[in-house]
Amino acid sequence: MTSNESKLAVVLLSGGLDSATTLAIAKDRGFAPHAISFNYGQRHTFELTSAAAIAAAANVPHTVVPLDLSAPAGFGGSALTDTSIDVPHDHDPSEAGIPSTYVPARNTIFLSVALGYAEILGAFDIFLGVNSVDYSGYPDCRPEFIAAFETLANLATAAGVGGGRYHIHAPLIEMTKGEIIQTGLALGVDYGLTHTCYDPDAAGRSCGTCDACQLRLAGFRDAGADDPVEYQ
Amino acid sequence: MTSNESKLAVVLLSGGLDSATTLAIAKDRGFAPHAISFNYGQRHTFELTSAAAIAAAANVPHTVVPLDLSAPAGFGGSALTDTSIDVPHDHDPSEAGIPSTYVPARNTIFLSVALGYAEILGAFDIFLGVNSVDYSGYPDCRPEFIAAFETLANLATAAGVGGGRYHIHAPLIEMTKGEIIQTGLALGVDYGLTHTCYDPDAAGRSCGTCDACQLRLAGFRDAGADDPVEYQ
Repeated sequence: MTSNESKLAVVLLSGGLDSATTLAIAKDRGFAPHAISFNYGQRHTFELTSAAAIAAAANVPHTVVPLDLSAPAGFGGSALTDTSIDVPHDHDPSEAGIPSTYVPARNTIFLSVALGYAEILGAFDIFLGVNSVDYSGYPDCRPEFIAAFETLANLATAAGVGGGRYHIHAPLIEMTKGEIIQTGLALGVDYGLTHTCYDPDAAGRSCGTCDACQLRLAGFRDAGADDPVEYQ
Repeated sequence: MTSNESKLAVVLLSGGLDSATTLAIAKDRGFAPHAISFNYGQRHTFELTSAAAIAAAANVPHTVVPLDLSAPAGFGGSALTDTSIDVPHDHDPSEAGIPSTYVPARNTIFLSVALGYAEILGAFDIFLGVNSVDYSGYPDCRPEFIAAFETLANLATAAGVGGGRYHIHAPLIEMTKGEIIQTGLALGVDYGLTHTCYDPDAAGRSCGTCDACQLRLAGFRDAGADDPVEYQ
């Protein structure tokens, strides 16, 4: 498929390892992706800088949507958007239950905006890097959530009702972190551009002990590769 | 049910006639509503002023979420968010097809944010004033869309997965505009506070000829009531 024949796609790009890999997969499958990120009042805006760098390296258009879900705007309730809640360190990320870093309805909100964006672009394919293996505590990372959103998308839009067919792609959903990293490395992803840590220092260096860092480091070990980002 | 026993609810409040009526219905059904509005880059911000006035008159908390869906932010494609597209006047609003005032995935986006807000509040009831009679051209105003979103909400959230049960209430969905106005008047809604026009003048006076004004004026005629807002 040449680039002139590529189908447009929208890729949710957080700036993390998973979404960077998902973007590479979308390109590898022959899509012409538009990346979309959210400035949602997250504790760490380093990830938006990373998202811009990843999109630039992949040579794809990138849009950042301002959508304030932080506590001062009336939201909060998550360690990721509410500075009054501490990010947990040295916690076992495989522990049952919903982590304090869960952001209420976040993937529903992000997919909804991506759907509106896709309809405007004329794209019918939306990619996101959710994963149900390492993040089983997040309800909106499960296959049944993705399937329900795809059903909704085809009822909610003029393009869907008009005979188009939206597809929500979650290519990482059944992969381990190690498999994700191996896949990305094979596709040439520069993981040095990605940002994963929930609680970086002022210079943006990763803590190495939050749930996200623990999963990332274990993933690189499983993949037999070195993590190129800097730790504190 | 006394106010101490009232169940929390989130009500999408646009500042228009339908959402003002929906807010009154939620209160009448014994809920303690929190109103939520969006500053989404809409052409007419008069409706946000109206939303604040309606929430104040109803004595309910009101949050305005900034979420830029306008053309400069990479969205657009609708006469309501893209000033390069004219609002149609003297068009027959009952005509088949999707109107140019359709905003891609708008109700999906608004409901998703309302869902996140509800989860933080501990509310399980979300009200919105969609109507499938007068706005049959909008795919996200149909009962099957509402049902699909309710299914999604219960899969997407920690509270839904945890045994709670979200309900999406669309009490106006089968009413005519005249019935909506009669219902609201019986509940004491001050329609003078509401803003409906898609294309007001600089003073905020309604045009009387856009689709929204035509439907509103016909609704007041059907209800046998006078419209208290000022027309150009």
